[in-house]
Amino acid sequence: MESYKRTSLFITLEGGEGSGKTSQINRLAQTLTDAGYKVVTSREPGGTAEGESIRDLLVQRDGGNWTPMAEVLLLNAARCMHISEVIQPALDKGKVVICDRFTDSTLAYQGYGRGMDLEKIKEIQNSVVGNVIPELTFILDIDVKDGLERSQKRLAGSHGVDKTEDRFERMDIEFHEKLRQGFLEIAKKDPKRCHVIDATQSIDDISEQMSKITLECLEKIGG
Amino acid sequence: MESYKRTSLFITLEGGEGSGKTSQINRLAQTLTDAGYKVVTSREPGGTAEGESIRDLLVQRDGGNWTPMAEVLLLNAARCMHISEVIQPALDKGKVVICDRFTDSTLAYQGYGRGMDLEKIKEIQNSVVGNVIPELTFILDIDVKDGLERSQKRLAGSHGVDKTEDRFERMDIEFHEKLRQGFLEIAKKDPKRCHVIDATQSIDDISEQMSKITLECLEKIGG
Repeated sequence: MESYKRTSLFITLEGGEGSGKTSQINRLAQTLTDAGYKVVTSREPGGTAEGESIRDLLVQRDGGNWTPMAEVLLLNAARCMHISEVIQPALDKGKVVICDRFTDSTLAYQGYGRGMDLEKIKEIQNSVVGNVIPELTFILDIDVKDGLERSQKRLAGSHGVDKTEDRFERMDIEFHEKLRQGFLEIAKKDPKRCHVIDATQSIDDISEQMSKITLECLEKIGG
Repeated sequence: MESYKRTSLFITLEGGEGSGKTSQINRLAQTLTDAGYKVVTSREPGGTAEGESIRDLLVQRDGGNWTPMAEVLLLNAARCMHISEVIQPALDKGKVVICDRFTDSTLAYQGYGRGMDLEKIKEIQNSVVGNVIPELTFILDIDVKDGLERSQKRLAGSHGVDKTEDRFERMDIEFHEKLRQGFLEIAKKDPKRCHVIDATQSIDDISEQMSKITLECLEKIGG
């Protein structure tokens, strides 16, 4: 009888605007695919048809003027669907799931950023995620002003597709500073899972670091 | 100095499809207005622009295939906005709020009906509503088949406006039976707040009963 070799891993990427998550997710997915793993990439809020309709309500300019509590509930409604339709089935099939934002973003944006009680957010999230908890999280850390500048360049270069998706990006520097500190605090509390990556490094340097950490983690759990 | 006379009261109407809630809300609002009270009527899910967009996701045929947990989170996100924008401000101004469905409907539909853990629903709802709890609830009780027949007649007679809003009405008899029993159980557990009304009576008889109970309640709290 062959011994069971676990190949599934739930990885999340977190960080403020303009930290370069999207490029890094694509690179990490390629590296892992090349190494023989089956990879699924996704994003929050979103990842399912239902989740994307919630995303529209939350991030578009005319989507609504939500209270932090309402935002947390909406994000977790989308997360519910995302877990049951995408994340859990992929992990069950032995795949690596790489997700652009997850529970840490809710803690950072609605908790540290908008001031909602962190314990209340955790309570709601715990009852939604169950045991679907990322084992590996990369927090792409960048100076707030640099990040917003990068993010604005990206918006200016886009062809209108993302131009309405900027509710959080239009918020002030102070808010984004709280976000950054929030992510760093989350990492500090959970250093085994969270790796803070200096996002001012070159794209190549960042992806090399992330690939190394991920492959080591996969080797360990697969061993 | 004049003594403070409380005039605010939060009333909810609950019940399955075709139980005649809408007509009764209009009649009760008229009676209370005639008696000198300031009245606000509203409905859930909905009551705010944000809530109505959540309603669209939940009740329309192509709104999504939500899990019970996702539904509970969406309903409570809408409820959050409803409380902070409509219900709380109205009560603060000494008004009577009459709401078509509230937390009991979530317990009945997603809990008793779709089988989600009742305690989990209550946990989420408690953190959303805080102290905004109805003091008076009318549960309009009707035999399931009679109710669905009435409701289908209403849909057939409408001019297309509500024709897509029938996701729950298309569910089977067994589901609606669970709903009915759920509402009756809720009433049994909280007999001081909940009044079960036999909805097979004439519209006049029902509204007379409801007016009597409501005016007595207002007199008591205002005394």
